[in-house]
Amino acid sequence: MVVVMNLTAGPEQIQAVQQRLEQFGFEIHIIRGVNRLVIGAVGDRRMISSLGLESMPGVEKIVPIMKPYKLVSRESKGQNSLVKVKDVVIGGDDIVVIAGPCAVENREQLLTAARMVRQAGAVVLRGGAFKPRTSPYSFQGLEEEGLKLLAEASAETGLVTVTEIIDEASLELALEYVDIIQVGARNMQNFRLLRAVGRSGKPVLLKRGLSATIEEWLMAAEYVVSEGNENVVLCERGIRTYEIATRNTLDLSAVPVVKGQSHLPVIVDPSHATGERKLVAPMARAAVAAGADGLLIEVHPEPDKALSDGPQSLTPEDFSSLMAELRKVATAVGRHIK
Amino acid sequence: MVVVMNLTAGPEQIQAVQQRLEQFGFEIHIIRGVNRLVIGAVGDRRMISSLGLESMPGVEKIVPIMKPYKLVSRESKGQNSLVKVKDVVIGGDDIVVIAGPCAVENREQLLTAARMVRQAGAVVLRGGAFKPRTSPYSFQGLEEEGLKLLAEASAETGLVTVTEIIDEASLELALEYVDIIQVGARNMQNFRLLRAVGRSGKPVLLKRGLSATIEEWLMAAEYVVSEGNENVVLCERGIRTYEIATRNTLDLSAVPVVKGQSHLPVIVDPSHATGERKLVAPMARAAVAAGADGLLIEVHPEPDKALSDGPQSLTPEDFSSLMAELRKVATAVGRHIK
Amino acid sequence: MVVVMNLTAGPEQIQAVQQRLEQFGFEIHIIRGVNRLVIGAVGDRRMISSLGLESMPGVEKIVPIMKPYKLVSRESKGQNSLVKVKDVVIGGDDIVVIAGPCAVENREQLLTAARMVRQAGAVVLRGGAFKPRTSPYSFQGLEEEGLKLLAEASAETGLVTVTEIIDEASLELALEYVDIIQVGARNMQNFRLLRAVGRSGKPVLLKRGLSATIEEWLMAAEYVVSEGNENVVLCERGIRTYEIATRNTLDLSAVPVVKGQSHLPVIVDPSHATGERKLVAPMARAAVAAGADGLLIEVHPEPDKALSDGPQSLTPEDFSSLMAELRKVATAVGRHIK
Amino acid sequence: MVVVMNLTAGPEQIQAVQQRLEQFGFEIHIIRGVNRLVIGAVGDRRMISSLGLESMPGVEKIVPIMKPYKLVSRESKGQNSLVKVKDVVIGGDDIVVIAGPCAVENREQLLTAARMVRQAGAVVLRGGAFKPRTSPYSFQGLEEEGLKLLAEASAETGLVTVTEIIDEASLELALEYVDIIQVGARNMQNFRLLRAVGRSGKPVLLKRGLSATIEEWLMAAEYVVSEGNENVVLCERGIRTYEIATRNTLDLSAVPVVKGQSHLPVIVDPSHATGERKLVAPMARAAVAAGADGLLIEVHPEPDKALSDGPQSLTPEDFSSLMAELRKVATAVGRHIK
Repeated sequence: MVVVMNLTAGPEQIQAVQQRLEQFGFEIHIIRGVNRLVIGAVGDRRMISSLGLESMPGVEKIVPIMKPYKLVSRESKGQNSLVKVKDVVIGGDDIVVIAGPCAVENREQLLTAARMVRQAGAVVLRGGAFKPRTSPYSFQGLEEEGLKLLAEASAETGLVTVTEIIDEASLELALEYVDIIQVGARNMQNFRLLRAVGRSGKPVLLKRGLSATIEEWLMAAEYVVSEGNENVVLCERGIRTYEIATRNTLDLSAVPVVKGQSHLPVIVDPSHATGERKLVAPMARAAVAAGADGLLIEVHPEPDKALSDGPQSLTPEDFSSLMAELRKVATAVGRHIK
Repeated sequence: MVVVMNLTAGPEQIQAVQQRLEQFGFEIHIIRGVNRLVIGAVGDRRMISSLGLESMPGVEKIVPIMKPYKLVSRESKGQNSLVKVKDVVIGGDDIVVIAGPCAVENREQLLTAARMVRQAGAVVLRGGAFKPRTSPYSFQGLEEEGLKLLAEASAETGLVTVTEIIDEASLELALEYVDIIQVGARNMQNFRLLRAVGRSGKPVLLKRGLSATIEEWLMAAEYVVSEGNENVVLCERGIRTYEIATRNTLDLSAVPVVKGQSHLPVIVDPSHATGERKLVAPMARAAVAAGADGLLIEVHPEPDKALSDGPQSLTPEDFSSLMAELRKVATAVGRHIK
Repeated sequence: MVVVMNLTAGPEQIQAVQQRLEQFGFEIHIIRGVNRLVIGAVGDRRMISSLGLESMPGVEKIVPIMKPYKLVSRESKGQNSLVKVKDVVIGGDDIVVIAGPCAVENREQLLTAARMVRQAGAVVLRGGAFKPRTSPYSFQGLEEEGLKLLAEASAETGLVTVTEIIDEASLELALEYVDIIQVGARNMQNFRLLRAVGRSGKPVLLKRGLSATIEEWLMAAEYVVSEGNENVVLCERGIRTYEIATRNTLDLSAVPVVKGQSHLPVIVDPSHATGERKLVAPMARAAVAAGADGLLIEVHPEPDKALSDGPQSLTPEDFSSLMAELRKVATAVGRHIK
Repeated sequence: MVVVMNLTAGPEQIQAVQQRLEQFGFEIHIIRGVNRLVIGAVGDRRMISSLGLESMPGVEKIVPIMKPYKLVSRESKGQNSLVKVKDVVIGGDDIVVIAGPCAVENREQLLTAARMVRQAGAVVLRGGAFKPRTSPYSFQGLEEEGLKLLAEASAETGLVTVTEIIDEASLELALEYVDIIQVGARNMQNFRLLRAVGRSGKPVLLKRGLSATIEEWLMAAEYVVSEGNENVVLCERGIRTYEIATRNTLDLSAVPVVKGQSHLPVIVDPSHATGERKLVAPMARAAVAAGADGLLIEVHPEPDKALSDGPQSLTPEDFSSLMAELRKVATAVGRHIK
């Protein structure tokens, strides 16, 4: 950490900062600049927030040098982590395609979707049973009934399943029925829930918050891993910007940035990011080319009858064509899709 | 609602949309433009998301005309709502100042802060017992112990109290000890929690999410009110933008915008918005001038020893001077501060 | 256009709006909703800003239905436009790679770069002679001397050239020496300059402004085309968001969005968008997979001696490897790179 | 400046960085941290961009300590600068109100507006003669004719005048007729124009760019001042964010932030920021309470007939009432309005 003192900081203020740092075990280096004094302090990055330095008289700003996360950092582990769920491995050479409807609506809809996405090459089935909806007047999901249908679809097709949980009660239910727990964008900083998911030990799909920095996203993953659960898959799903031509702005650069800073696998959700069916295919291809370890794609047997997010869902036919395109792009970048 | 058909939409596509709308009870008006056809549809705004129109062939876009919220809208109630908590009224002529430390740290800190902010004219005491922290390695709050200290401070000083809850368990605890429940920015779209807070009937301080639009914020309030709890106070606390000179960008325009669209009271938190002590006073004055019904200000007896957010906390002396300034501005805009 | 009247609009206010619209030749459709009245108006979209409707008493808001641009819209021309510069065609099956240093620094640097990028397969040479720099104390470019070096490099290698102009004086000079005129992000709404570039008739590379919406970007292109110059190539180069892990956020979704709304070719600049060498290759691959018609990539013979933007420049070796990767991705999406 | 080396940086890489720094006259301090080495370098901040350090092998990042601007910084001059134009002083105790129509439309409109705003207490008349418009099909201004009308209005009323220039040609014309030159948001980084304005020596109103950071805005001012023209007034006018309830988001915190970092006066434009008449008054009051040195307010004799930005223009009556309110707020914060 570097502590920048302001122009008018007097000797006793500098000394006070120095003492505070030494008291917490930091090693001190004083650098006298042209106009101001800078204190380099070597010690435990995680202590910074306890030091209260920014409130001390004479301190202009604190510049941290180390990253605030540790367990999920590339520095703590050079090799890529592999998250294994039954026979599916996320983070290896194979690009993992997760597909299915936004919401589980009924038995026929889900089973039809499951068979069709499996046929096209998806290895994980998605389906929402608990839907966080902006309006209290919108469809909120089938809850446990939806989870049972996911389990049934899995039993029939052999697909691994993933569903979003929205609180500890839904987590407990989901743990019984599905293979991967999804923490949605709105809960990325629901720290209690992250800890609970961490304690569960189940594989986790952690979506990036709508306006989360990559650093905050990795800190959220750190919450899960710090409870002993290393099976975290990150999912970029678009961030909020001023641009309204797309629902969100898909930040594909996040893929190589995360790959550089963390050992965790990262996948991309082009459906929620763009909100528009026609944009899903080009952005899915781009995600694979950028190095994503997987994709999360909404597919609905009859998108115009969907109870949630129909406009962004692919038909099974569209999805099947897309898979053919994705296989070519995967090959072009030295990866593979089942 | 207005449905814009695309250039190439054929008669059977137009008819299909028309039938779907009529089936849901909408009244139809066809407008033939120079290049494209537009369908005006009169009916229940809350049905739109169930119609799936955006996925129908030939549909280019849907333009809603009505606001998606109803109970919290100015149209549903012309008069300003007053939220009453003991002898404190939020939303009336008096500007309500809420003050206290970011986190409850110990008995002495909280009682000292309570006495001092009361002395200076605050009528509500804030203090965090459950702290949502970005890092799993930071101080997470005293939990129930903190709530007990808030109750003790209230008993001694007569101040009304407010504390943030972070899940249903903390909500249940808080209901026993404090007067106002705060839903933090990170939980603004935790819809389960909003419903639970709604069912509790307690006065609620609902902070705006870090990247929430004003419409989404009002929809979150609609969740609470739709459970029968009308005691909602909105709190603007800065939004995330590209600017890094301040922690967040305080969106003061939100005050008059909310006042125009809703009957609920709205207050402002300049401490979290700016993240810097020197900016709190000017932005607090500006908030009062913009028409805010109250302020939420962090005050700590010894900011440089604070376990959380010290750099933005005022000293009791600073707070006392600020109150004197605020009284003058309040008078200038025809309001009053105790 | 749809005019939404507010709840309290009286008959004489409605009539006044109606008269204003009719006076400007609009055809009127009145739709009476549950709570408010809506006026559908069919006429010339470009008249809207002259109508002053938003200021008329009783008007709540105006919702335009048509796009504000015309000449550049996909609706005005179904086929993709091809921009031809000597033997280079932008917008066809071939993906066009533009490469070279950020700034022209001296003869040796530019000629070395030109030979090397040509060798690797680039068909256009970039090099800045007029540098818009944030600081008045930074290197501002070689100006005409730089243009001459570009012309010399072109003569030797056969490469087409592109350079940024920053005002009418630099435009006039550039017209003498280079093949394509670049309008930078900071000048995307310098409307005088856009008109001048339009009148010149030269092929134009129009970068998206740092916080321009896609609609504003297309309106900027409309300025150029409305002067009779249809040779416009759009270039996505990252937008400003709250994320600081990358210099800007590359908005790759803009590629398919623009392709849907306009007939103009669109290319991508991953170097400026990311600001970091390691991110250039993955984002270049992603751009090709998303459907970009070309790439603009910074290459410097010795990046660590560059006078401008060294950290994002590739070495010639990196560039050569990248070209090999890009060819594979291009083939995977049915395109071709020389 | 602090240079952070990455984890794997070897001794020869560290030495190379050290040599580069010493070669440019920097004094070096090596700090060995737990995991990585950090180099503190004391020297001329303005040299940083020439060093190319970020491209050197082993370098992870560069953290500048000093601000990049110098002449405009508070550190270079402790006292507030006063910008004097005839008998108007901007930056002193008096809050300066600039008012008038968005665009000069005709003689009667401008003279009526001038008389009315003067009557209400404005001391500077605004009026656009060169309008940068998003659409090539919108009204572009009366140009020299408009400037002459401004001069006439000034002669009659004694008001000081300000108008926006959009290139060097319009600057030259404006210098003949008006007292203050406005550089608009879209030209805030038109560096050639900034230099030309600097050389002119005329007082300058420098609007903040739509997505400019405060640092970039001060750097733009540095361009003007570095040409010897210290008469710069900064103007906050809203920034682009994700929020669409207002045209832009007025960043009032920028007022105290700029006051802390620079000695230049700063005023606020609530009309363009909000884009809506009803929001102008509350945000104008808030700006004064936040410490602004002045306001820029659009007033039009007949807003619903305005050729540009009618919806945000006040009527003369509204403006007159607002002035009465502003005088009270100014008094409350120890300032004064004529």
